[in-house]
Amino acid sequence: MSERARIARLEAQLGGAAPGVRLGIGDDAAVLDPDLVWTVDAQVEGTHFDLRWVGWEDIGWRSFMAASSDLAAMGAAPVAALSSLVLAPSFDDDALDAFARGQAAAARAVGAPVVGGNLARGTETSITTTLLGRAAQPVLRSGARPGDGVWLAGAVGLAAAGLGLLMQDARVQDASIAMCLAAWRRPNALLAQGRALGGVASAAIDVSDGLGHDAAQLAEASEVALVLDARLLAALSPAALVAAARRLGRAALDLALEGGEDYALLATSASALPGFTRIGVVEPFAGSRLFIEDEEGKKPHVARGFDHFPVLEDAVL
Amino acid sequence: MSERARIARLEAQLGGAAPGVRLGIGDDAAVLDPDLVWTVDAQVEGTHFDLRWVGWEDIGWRSFMAASSDLAAMGAAPVAALSSLVLAPSFDDDALDAFARGQAAAARAVGAPVVGGNLARGTETSITTTLLGRAAQPVLRSGARPGDGVWLAGAVGLAAAGLGLLMQDARVQDASIAMCLAAWRRPNALLAQGRALGGVASAAIDVSDGLGHDAAQLAEASEVALVLDARLLAALSPAALVAAARRLGRAALDLALEGGEDYALLATSASALPGFTRIGVVEPFAGSRLFIEDEEGKKPHVARGFDHFPVLEDAVL
Repeated sequence: MSERARIARLEAQLGGAAPGVRLGIGDDAAVLDPDLVWTVDAQVEGTHFDLRWVGWEDIGWRSFMAASSDLAAMGAAPVAALSSLVLAPSFDDDALDAFARGQAAAARAVGAPVVGGNLARGTETSITTTLLGRAAQPVLRSGARPGDGVWLAGAVGLAAAGLGLLMQDARVQDASIAMCLAAWRRPNALLAQGRALGGVASAAIDVSDGLGHDAAQLAEASEVALVLDARLLAALSPAALVAAARRLGRAALDLALEGGEDYALLATSASALPGFTRIGVVEPFAGSRLFIEDEEGKKPHVARGFDHFPVLEDAVL
Repeated sequence: MSERARIARLEAQLGGAAPGVRLGIGDDAAVLDPDLVWTVDAQVEGTHFDLRWVGWEDIGWRSFMAASSDLAAMGAAPVAALSSLVLAPSFDDDALDAFARGQAAAARAVGAPVVGGNLARGTETSITTTLLGRAAQPVLRSGARPGDGVWLAGAVGLAAAGLGLLMQDARVQDASIAMCLAAWRRPNALLAQGRALGGVASAAIDVSDGLGHDAAQLAEASEVALVLDARLLAALSPAALVAAARRLGRAALDLALEGGEDYALLATSASALPGFTRIGVVEPFAGSRLFIEDEEGKKPHVARGFDHFPVLEDAVL
């Protein structure tokens, strides 16, 4: 059963209207009365990170930012976090210190302190971060309307390029490589851009599983199709992505569409969104959720999602 | 480094006052303005449960109740939950259905729907449940004063007896065994009793790691000592506990003090607490945090915590 099917099964058992619940299973975060936005994210050793390529301080940072990005996509301001750790026997005191430093730094950057959590023993280490935020006007995945523009904040593809370079044992040789490695190791949730969405954007999603995959998710939730313009995406590509793509033997557009863990934001809006760049348009649904348009025309695109690594069949409920 | 030391280390990095945070790391749950009470709990296969002795439906129920019990101890009413699952390859579709049935039943019983979550792949299955609740007057661990009574709601020792019987391959032969097995497999968070604590109890804690261990925790947080009366505990012991203790070759008092996963509530109060029974008294700290008193007098007691199983060195931040 696919992750999508599993979520549908869980929703059938667990979902349904309830007093005080404005939005349940199926978006980047849940929304509770009066203005609470709430998310949880897990990072599992061997699935989401590998200690050959990242240290515990960066893991602390990344795990916090991954959860924060869900709030950014809802247009919410983070309030506080709980951090639940399942620790393998190899997780020693130095690892704990480094991890805590990374989480503390991310919590300060985001403005949401860690106010509690849980420690448990296991055979593999995993970090589950839950964040509460507030949004007067939460932005859902489901409001995109034909005619809206498609807008992007943040670079896409750089993090996947960074991971690819790490897996090729690239050392930091130049600014391009350094930028890609930093994008993967130290992503930043785009909270300021997210807060600008409330009351303006018709829909939004955070780009964590690849732009193509997440654009199709937004399109499905909104029952529309998204058309992304390859020429605009190419024009947006940082030189570091172009350089990394060459080194990795991949197309920059492919990295931009299929690379995950960017924590960029994708939104739809009838009017301009500050901090975002327009990359496409919303159309009525006609067989495919996602199209890529270039000088040769408009073609349906089936996103593979991010799978460079033994990674990322995970999904938000 | 002990779990306690690890929490202190995390608190040094992550703790500290922050706007909107009424209570951070160090209690059963965090408290945020204006009245939010928030907890997270993890249950890890091989650490907290073993599929030889429990099925996925019960695991769904237990994991939800374990988190709910933290809210009960704060005097909070649950509002909603997020459920984050790390799933091993062996976790199949039938397991998912059974797990979801168990969580849905617990969510209904508690009155807090699952409004979202996360699915991720791993090599061992773990379930992290985060619950939000509300309490006008949250009850902390730290308010016990000398002279207060010590009060208990719920049976202690039955769940550990149930696990011990399962590990001895006991089948359900009589009502006593059935009661112990049910106590371990299907615990109930004592939410109604918890809600009666607000504005009355001086301190409270949920009894999940053994009455002795958790009583000492409350005493330490309150900078007092607790004296528990063994005769009152014996008088409270259900016949099922006495019968199970005999079968397990243990003293019933030992099971009551050291057995974990009861999800009973321990509170201190100057006046009577509805739904609770008085089992001791709060005294000023004088060298030991916990004493057991019987006809031979009062002796310091060092709680071992719950460790029958490869279990439960976990801790709440």
